[in-house]
Amino acid sequence: MNYPTGTKRKNLTDKNHSNINYRNRGMTLEAEINLSNEYYQEIDKAYIYKKPTPIKITKVDYPSRDKAVIKEAFFTVPSTTDYNGIYKGKYIDFEAKETRSSTSFNLNNIHPHQIKHLSNVYNHGGIAFVIVRFTILNETYLLKTEDLLSYIANSKRKSIPLAYFKEKAYILSDNYRPRIDYLQVVDLLIGGN
Amino acid sequence: MNYPTGTKRKNLTDKNHSNINYRNRGMTLEAEINLSNEYYQEIDKAYIYKKPTPIKITKVDYPSRDKAVIKEAFFTVPSTTDYNGIYKGKYIDFEAKETRSSTSFNLNNIHPHQIKHLSNVYNHGGIAFVIVRFTILNETYLLKTEDLLSYIANSKRKSIPLAYFKEKAYILSDNYRPRIDYLQVVDLLIGGN
Repeated sequence: MNYPTGTKRKNLTDKNHSNINYRNRGMTLEAEINLSNEYYQEIDKAYIYKKPTPIKITKVDYPSRDKAVIKEAFFTVPSTTDYNGIYKGKYIDFEAKETRSSTSFNLNNIHPHQIKHLSNVYNHGGIAFVIVRFTILNETYLLKTEDLLSYIANSKRKSIPLAYFKEKAYILSDNYRPRIDYLQVVDLLIGGN
Repeated sequence: MNYPTGTKRKNLTDKNHSNINYRNRGMTLEAEINLSNEYYQEIDKAYIYKKPTPIKITKVDYPSRDKAVIKEAFFTVPSTTDYNGIYKGKYIDFEAKETRSSTSFNLNNIHPHQIKHLSNVYNHGGIAFVIVRFTILNETYLLKTEDLLSYIANSKRKSIPLAYFKEKAYILSDNYRPRIDYLQVVDLLIGGN
């Protein structure tokens, strides 16, 4: 397993960790990533945003000239991943998912065209990855698109075992600000290019 | 005025142009850019997408387990520009606007935080610009963020005169596929870096 900036695994069980657990209780991975992105924006480090949820609007009321109220709309399948933006001149693109399983991550959680999108970004020189949280274990991993694609190409399983994350992915430790410092790992990925 | 790949201004009034006018009749700039982006994706040239319209959902019905119907939602102010993606390893970001004016582009058409966003992207090494169409003139321009910011910094006017576009921007000619080949201009911008 890879640890950014010398974080040690035992941190996950040390005294400090109970605090972190408490802070994070009930906060979704999405909320934590959004907070992290806001922090990166505040310190002018990176501009990475969650895309709005794609919907198809079928009815809109205009009670007044400037006010529109959507009265009927449906969720649609996203064309791309949820997050993208710019860091150090690089195009950054990723999807973030939580799983309740403590043994594997089911690939059904990511749409095939999202995997294709990550692959396209990678092939065109972007930094593309998935962030997967095993909520019960409170472990969050960043898996490079190359390693995601390699697993899919070489396995017949529909899910990625936790062991594969432990072997190939980077663990993301909990912090205060930013909540999840995934750009530490991106620095390693850029450095390794 | 700058013309990508030697396009000549007289093309805009030559015989062929009446055809192009006919094809484009009623098609919005947004629809044309979306078509162009789809074409770029098809030929594996670039992956640039329009972000979904941001909304705040306030009521959702779940008539069955897999079906959700949004019953009330409101349009919200976008945090960023409408379009972003990757081309030749570069982060691309832009906003596209139409104006009915045939003399100037009113800066009220772009939110101040969108201008700030373009500025952030530019400062972090991305390729950032606006595409502005003067619909009555049927002229579409790509204006670099640097030139947009320079105008705002040096003028007290709330609108950018057409003459400034003619002087600083790149004209985008109508084509078949892609409909608007703005990446021709991006190639010039990358080359000029």
